[in-house]
Amino acid sequence: MHFIAETTSNGVSERLFALDDVHGVLWSPDGGGDRPLVLLGHGGGQHKRAEGLVARARRYVVDCGFAVAAIDAPGHGDRPKGERDERFAAGMKERIAAGKPVGPHVARYNEELAERVVPEWRAVLDALGVADGPVGYWGVSLGSAIGVPLVAAEPRITAAVFGLAGHEPLADAAARVTVPVEFLLQWDDELVPRASALALFDAFASREKTLHANPGRHAAVPAFEVESSQRFFSRHLAV
Amino acid sequence: MHFIAETTSNGVSERLFALDDVHGVLWSPDGGGDRPLVLLGHGGGQHKRAEGLVARARRYVVDCGFAVAAIDAPGHGDRPKGERDERFAAGMKERIAAGKPVGPHVARYNEELAERVVPEWRAVLDALGVADGPVGYWGVSLGSAIGVPLVAAEPRITAAVFGLAGHEPLADAAARVTVPVEFLLQWDDELVPRASALALFDAFASREKTLHANPGRHAAVPAFEVESSQRFFSRHLAV
Repeated sequence: MHFIAETTSNGVSERLFALDDVHGVLWSPDGGGDRPLVLLGHGGGQHKRAEGLVARARRYVVDCGFAVAAIDAPGHGDRPKGERDERFAAGMKERIAAGKPVGPHVARYNEELAERVVPEWRAVLDALGVADGPVGYWGVSLGSAIGVPLVAAEPRITAAVFGLAGHEPLADAAARVTVPVEFLLQWDDELVPRASALALFDAFASREKTLHANPGRHAAVPAFEVESSQRFFSRHLAV
Repeated sequence: MHFIAETTSNGVSERLFALDDVHGVLWSPDGGGDRPLVLLGHGGGQHKRAEGLVARARRYVVDCGFAVAAIDAPGHGDRPKGERDERFAAGMKERIAAGKPVGPHVARYNEELAERVVPEWRAVLDALGVADGPVGYWGVSLGSAIGVPLVAAEPRITAAVFGLAGHEPLADAAARVTVPVEFLLQWDDELVPRASALALFDAFASREKTLHANPGRHAAVPAFEVESSQRFFSRHLAV
């Protein structure tokens, strides 16, 4: 793992890193020290330093004292788009122009991305020297398509916030997730049918899981859910 | 309104009151002053000073600086049981002995209680000198059977936590509720079918409403939802 650049502002250090062809960023309180780590999974079309992700990372660092890491998914951010990514983008344009639903198209692409990103995240945890946690994972939409199989596979992750995702194709992985889960559902989600999201919440094997549903479309998760996720992680990632 | 007795412990004043045949209790920070008021509606078979209700009231007073009030529903606590209450209790015993579902029986009784309690709560607000709020309402199960029609009718109440209740017979009243609502649903509720509770959440006309669903049976709402309700009321009842 190579650290490429470091900047510090308002007490938060931000370090860009690369591990093979994975590009990532690590935020932490200026000064370092052992602390819980939260992984952030960005949404589709976004990247590791998208505005909402950076704002969330800074709050986790400043308010909770966590370290926070994010990486670009393949074809996102600083990573080159491949033929598959271009095909996905063209398929989106076609469907939108034709007024066709894009949900299943997005879900198929996300599933393929997840197969590639899960081992990348695990390699990043190794490279960061994380032996056993506590590690949290936050990611909705594409961030859940990647996060649910990641958390199912990765025992170092001990609490997760997911959401904006449906039962297929995540049900099998969800049934292997046993850590505490907070799950966000948008009541009027235009990409994920309500029943499918409720079925995914139902599928998690976790003894503690809590569903937060709010009115509005896919991208309209209310701001107070950021604070709720901070309390959730603070409850479960205490060192 | 007559105040009957006052005790103070750990900075919380607790005053019992009577208004006609309504018996209630008012908790407030020792010292008084203008502050938001939260009304608590107890569950079926409970009363204004049930253990969970008192613990919640004390946290609202100490952590949030609210005043808190609760009253006994007819046939509960310090109020005499009438013929209808006895008939309900006998019906419960019969159904449980026969292994029959009690949900509809409970819902019918709760609906009748609500018709009597809604005007009682409004009279208590008048007697407490509440001109225009901010007032919050918390009540699940019977507390929602009473609370949903109360909040629909009472403009002084500006935020409410409901839950553990189904679509019938509350749907019409819910469609007249426009204040922010936090709604608790137990995923494995043995009294309220999941689809009916989801339909009630759907029915609220509130622009801001948030559903919190957790695994477990009717009475197993997790403790962290107390803290969540404190943040909800703190957000919405700021003076």
